Amino acid sequence: MGDNDGVVFIGSKPPMNYVLAVVTQFHSGSKVVHIKARGKAISRAVDVAEIVRNRFIENVKIMKIEISTEVMKTENDEDINVSAIDIELSK
Amino acid sequence: MGDNDGVVFIGSKPPMNYVLAVVTQFHSGSKVVHIKARGKAISRAVDVAEIVRNRFIENVKIMKIEISTEVMKTENDEDINVSAIDIELSK
Repeated sequence: MGDNDGVVFIGSKPPMNYVLAVVTQFHSGSKVVHIKARGKAISRAVDVAEIVRNRFIENVKIMKIEISTEVMKTENDEDINVSAIDIELSK
Repeated sequence: MGDNDGVVFIGSKPPMNYVLAVVTQFHSGSKVVHIKARGKAISRAVDVAEIVRNRFIENVKIMKIEISTEVMKTENDEDINVSAIDIELSK
């Protein structure tokens, strides 16, 4: 990732909150914004990317989509595997 | 998509059901298998792809990941936009 790349981490809020965050990062000068999510939030990350490019910023392109597996700790200190996604948008 | 490409549509069953379907398609001769999902099942599609390549078929690669928006009809005949994913695995 480049130094000026923006990043938006997707949580459990409504998609529009994150759409606004992505649009704001592009408007404040980022040429590249990464939308990142883990687990069930992955579906929302795809929604956010699609809403941004279909309804808000016409000339934004999906440059790369990467999926991976991250190891996280449960409350009981056990390791669990969680899927992750990184959607790279570029203007 | 090529004629011999396999396709697995992800629904709401446990991920292992779909992992088995993907592995079976590779074992029956497919060189390429597409994992497709819409809406909330997108997260599960990523889980399935990750489990297949990390635990079942070592030499499988993610060739392409595409996201898109599909228009679907609700029960009340209204159009709604639904995000979709297509993960292309190749052996």
